[in-house]
Amino acid sequence: MKTINVGLVGITGYAGMELTRLLAGHPCMRLCMACSRAEAGKRLGEYYPFLNHMPGADVVISVFDPQEAARQCELVFLAVPAGTAMDMADPLLRAGVKVVDFSADFRLRDPDIYAQWYKRDHICPELLHKAVYGLPERYADAIAKAQLVANPGCYPTSVILGLAAALKHDFIQTIDIVVDAKSGATGAGRKASVPTLFCEVSDNFRAYGLPTHRHTPEIEQELSSLVGHDVLLSFNTHLLPTNRGILSTIYTKLKHPETTLDEVHAAYVSTWNNSQWVRVLPKGALPETRFVRGSMFCDIGLVVDSRTGRLIILSAIDNLCRGASGQALANANLMCGLSVETGLTALAPLA
Amino acid sequence: MKTINVGLVGITGYAGMELTRLLAGHPCMRLCMACSRAEAGKRLGEYYPFLNHMPGADVVISVFDPQEAARQCELVFLAVPAGTAMDMADPLLRAGVKVVDFSADFRLRDPDIYAQWYKRDHICPELLHKAVYGLPERYADAIAKAQLVANPGCYPTSVILGLAAALKHDFIQTIDIVVDAKSGATGAGRKASVPTLFCEVSDNFRAYGLPTHRHTPEIEQELSSLVGHDVLLSFNTHLLPTNRGILSTIYTKLKHPETTLDEVHAAYVSTWNNSQWVRVLPKGALPETRFVRGSMFCDIGLVVDSRTGRLIILSAIDNLCRGASGQALANANLMCGLSVETGLTALAPLA
Amino acid sequence: MKTINVGLVGITGYAGMELTRLLAGHPCMRLCMACSRAEAGKRLGEYYPFLNHMPGADVVISVFDPQEAARQCELVFLAVPAGTAMDMADPLLRAGVKVVDFSADFRLRDPDIYAQWYKRDHICPELLHKAVYGLPERYADAIAKAQLVANPGCYPTSVILGLAAALKHDFIQTIDIVVDAKSGATGAGRKASVPTLFCEVSDNFRAYGLPTHRHTPEIEQELSSLVGHDVLLSFNTHLLPTNRGILSTIYTKLKHPETTLDEVHAAYVSTWNNSQWVRVLPKGALPETRFVRGSMFCDIGLVVDSRTGRLIILSAIDNLCRGASGQALANANLMCGLSVETGLTALAPLA
Amino acid sequence: MKTINVGLVGITGYAGMELTRLLAGHPCMRLCMACSRAEAGKRLGEYYPFLNHMPGADVVISVFDPQEAARQCELVFLAVPAGTAMDMADPLLRAGVKVVDFSADFRLRDPDIYAQWYKRDHICPELLHKAVYGLPERYADAIAKAQLVANPGCYPTSVILGLAAALKHDFIQTIDIVVDAKSGATGAGRKASVPTLFCEVSDNFRAYGLPTHRHTPEIEQELSSLVGHDVLLSFNTHLLPTNRGILSTIYTKLKHPETTLDEVHAAYVSTWNNSQWVRVLPKGALPETRFVRGSMFCDIGLVVDSRTGRLIILSAIDNLCRGASGQALANANLMCGLSVETGLTALAPLA
Repeated sequence: MKTINVGLVGITGYAGMELTRLLAGHPCMRLCMACSRAEAGKRLGEYYPFLNHMPGADVVISVFDPQEAARQCELVFLAVPAGTAMDMADPLLRAGVKVVDFSADFRLRDPDIYAQWYKRDHICPELLHKAVYGLPERYADAIAKAQLVANPGCYPTSVILGLAAALKHDFIQTIDIVVDAKSGATGAGRKASVPTLFCEVSDNFRAYGLPTHRHTPEIEQELSSLVGHDVLLSFNTHLLPTNRGILSTIYTKLKHPETTLDEVHAAYVSTWNNSQWVRVLPKGALPETRFVRGSMFCDIGLVVDSRTGRLIILSAIDNLCRGASGQALANANLMCGLSVETGLTALAPLA
Repeated sequence: MKTINVGLVGITGYAGMELTRLLAGHPCMRLCMACSRAEAGKRLGEYYPFLNHMPGADVVISVFDPQEAARQCELVFLAVPAGTAMDMADPLLRAGVKVVDFSADFRLRDPDIYAQWYKRDHICPELLHKAVYGLPERYADAIAKAQLVANPGCYPTSVILGLAAALKHDFIQTIDIVVDAKSGATGAGRKASVPTLFCEVSDNFRAYGLPTHRHTPEIEQELSSLVGHDVLLSFNTHLLPTNRGILSTIYTKLKHPETTLDEVHAAYVSTWNNSQWVRVLPKGALPETRFVRGSMFCDIGLVVDSRTGRLIILSAIDNLCRGASGQALANANLMCGLSVETGLTALAPLA
Repeated sequence: MKTINVGLVGITGYAGMELTRLLAGHPCMRLCMACSRAEAGKRLGEYYPFLNHMPGADVVISVFDPQEAARQCELVFLAVPAGTAMDMADPLLRAGVKVVDFSADFRLRDPDIYAQWYKRDHICPELLHKAVYGLPERYADAIAKAQLVANPGCYPTSVILGLAAALKHDFIQTIDIVVDAKSGATGAGRKASVPTLFCEVSDNFRAYGLPTHRHTPEIEQELSSLVGHDVLLSFNTHLLPTNRGILSTIYTKLKHPETTLDEVHAAYVSTWNNSQWVRVLPKGALPETRFVRGSMFCDIGLVVDSRTGRLIILSAIDNLCRGASGQALANANLMCGLSVETGLTALAPLA
Repeated sequence: MKTINVGLVGITGYAGMELTRLLAGHPCMRLCMACSRAEAGKRLGEYYPFLNHMPGADVVISVFDPQEAARQCELVFLAVPAGTAMDMADPLLRAGVKVVDFSADFRLRDPDIYAQWYKRDHICPELLHKAVYGLPERYADAIAKAQLVANPGCYPTSVILGLAAALKHDFIQTIDIVVDAKSGATGAGRKASVPTLFCEVSDNFRAYGLPTHRHTPEIEQELSSLVGHDVLLSFNTHLLPTNRGILSTIYTKLKHPETTLDEVHAAYVSTWNNSQWVRVLPKGALPETRFVRGSMFCDIGLVVDSRTGRLIILSAIDNLCRGASGQALANANLMCGLSVETGLTALAPLA
């Protein structure tokens, strides 16, 4: 198998940490550049002791330079904050490098919506048309041809995969969808801050960001594209005292209250029958975040409540693997002509 | 202050454990009888080492006998499973003992609804009319005169307190309420079982019991009584990897989409202005389960989402104190002529 | 009961947080001054939402001023870092205020040892002779007369209480004592830092600070004073993924290998027979940090290993209550003529 | 690569769960038999939802039968309790099957010591001479030729690897070694029991089994064999509120108090220089259990305390992977002629 040299800009966050973990087990991608202004000069294995004795440990952390990146790498992962990614992507693309961007900078097709939710103007709106939304289940062909992939947000991944079959089979009303989503604390980032200290998160639970979480427009954009008209939903997030995992509980109203679980379940199974990563649970079973830990799986549980005429969909993913770095790697695989699951098949500890 | 002798039947569960903790700090109630078939003969301090050097530690655990209970106790707390409580309450009441029952056996006024949700017939439906639903904010006067109090469920306490002001002020539609509730693992009980082992709950999150959680009819009964007509809601529960705490995120639709947060907040503040335990948070603040840990507080946060025309109410309580043993003690205080908060004012550790 | 006005300098750390909690339940101490440069101007209940509806919530946070402190307070608690405390104590004492200092600044009698372990010179060594080491079990009489009390470190409290009876009864060799101590993460402080983020501490365990933890000289000073000659020990600390609790496992060698558990246990029981807070567990029982959570208890378990000729002592305390703020309050009680346990008798949640 | 068919007896415990995870990623071992009396008849993916869409999910759980095992499998893993393993191993070996036993039944060479610590007689002591102790770093050659491998205990793995270099280089006294070991709760097994419920373990810490943990004789046997004379040590265990991970803090006395950290560190580095799994940390660094999570690594940190003349060794492993199932798989690899690390190279999530 040919070796594909890749770079990673932004190593100190959890997404960067997770990508170094996954790349260490990839059969043909080789991490040859890792950038961080703050940690430049250290070996990666010095900064992340878990990497020692593994591929990537000896890469020396450097300051990002697009020319140098282009010289060394076929593809670069940008695991930097929204706003910063825009600045870096343009020179990389001009230099012919493929880019997978973890941030929201290239996810929204409409720069006005970007400006409205992210409180800044987009500096390269012309790139929005080139960027492909990196959800392999929906856009695999376009991803394979893209030079720039906007890696989906963690929450949107769980919600879009959870709702797709119900929307496609026209079971539910597209107004009045409510998403109650819960995420582990890696989703809150790796910056030093009091609210994410162990003793503030442990044995605690709280909502945050209501009602204006920035993943809202991204979810609405993709669901609207799925059904062909505008979808508006109530999207609400909570912080779990866990390291990883997202569970989205999605409340919908059935178009026909007499719809049965059997019908819905059969439709989900047929939709996802050939998917390696979306697992529709047996009727009566509900997903648990631990069962998708460290993996690309999206586990979907279905509940029909005939008392209230609702279909409730429960969708679980790992926010860092499926919701960030694993999905980025899947996209990179496609962009480099590899099978989408290359390097993404190991099961992580379940307990 | 006079001494009030009380008994506790069912000590091995978390509610029983919590009540022994609270009684150890009560200025005038004295635990003189503690019953458990499995642990009979042990000192309470032997079974619960945390109690040693505290009031109650030297009570010898005994097998429940209603005559003996009547001889020793003015009031008995029943912390036993639904079904068992019915059997025990009747002889106690006949013997003149006051009873606070933790189970659901006396919460539902309609024995048919009881039979439907609890899958058994009620054996003493005539007692349902004597029982008072023990939510002090709503029924303090009736509780003070009652001989039998049905202590509310943990989830219902959080939901009823959370919704009361919005319903009273007629802000919201009474159809289409969705409650997404999350509880710590003490809510799952203290019986040996694999699904509640540390390694199965830790770093995990899952829903359970959808869509038929038994607290549903109790919530609907009380909300219907509040508004004067039938309320039907979707009530859904999740298991948190925490010891304690319930956060209910309550999704409602505004009757008038132009209703502002200012209006709603002012109405909540005025409703709860004189309540010692219900704390309406400042606008923009959201409750956290840790801030009500071990206490009787119910913290309420309010969100108006004008995009979707929704009022979202977040209500946090401690499931064991406010949601079980503390509320039982508050009821017992009222039944014995004490001030409702007697023995319930200590703050527990917040971190 | 008379009201005693007290002040607290340093509210943003966990010890300050814990003291506001305990003072809210104190029958006669009234927090009338709370100082923090960073949070000045806020109500205490705004900064700590758990305090609302409780005594202390309406105190407005101010910048420390010794004259103002003296005007308002009979006693001031200093919950500030070592080094800063020295600066503040002197003007307070001159103004006639009683001081309980949480830091190490007045614990060591020898300023050279202070300089050696804390890497700075002591600026008011003359105060060291006035300061009393605030361990009530050893120095209650002196504390009651003191104007300045040096509140013991959390680890030293557990180790000194654990070893005292074995040393007093001459069971063990005073060379070769090894202490393997483990503390919850509140012990690491409440400053924003990556190593104490939830995701870095959760599901993790590690040692830290070996072999030069600053509590070492304080332990050696007190144990040496107990036995009348120099004691040198190996003191080693670990970080638990818990909020609270210290368990010190203390490895000693028996002077006489044939010493039995019966003998050692009887000696411990007789030593601590009249102590309200030190609980010697039954033979065969071992302490758990949860059983002392939020309390002043020190639970001691004893193991004699005749194979290796060792007495192993396990000593558990709550690092924030017994190990810091609760002990500070006990000292303040004594200094103000109150019973030592005033305001310290509530049991915290055990699960 | 040829396919090697293997069986697993005992799937419901954490070691069995972990082995199914690891086998799902093994390039040439194929799980073709999984036995459990209690779960017989279910698909493995039904019992362990995390396995669905992965190799092994469709194996139907069966009741153990040695003839059937011999027909289907080249090698069988026994993940059953001590006592039961003896019964099963003999017929398997007679039928020509290779066996890796997770229990203690074949670890101790002396049946009298087995009887003394495990409170039962060994029923096939003649097999003890055939069994090889499955620590690859010490016995790789013998393992490769063995038909029966006794997989080491989790704690012994951490202690033996931690001490080996210090003993080999004669730095330390072989009397008076104290091991203070801490393990995550998977080490306590997956049986339903109150003491291992989430709410009893979470935010708690305690010692257990002192001073007679059954791993003691196994450690002493291997260390004695290393140094050529009897080693007696004090081995003491604690339960961490984590899923995984063992940290052993090993207290030794230097033979020569002037020995420096430089010398000890150099000796450790030279001893383990060619080891893929034992990582000697840089001077000053201490191991963390999360950095070895789900892996075969043993991370070793070294501390020389010249004040007390001690070498303190900190040794971290994952108790389920390195301490049980991963090591079993490494042994199976060697027994089947594969490279020892086959299927054991994926990194697990670190946060």
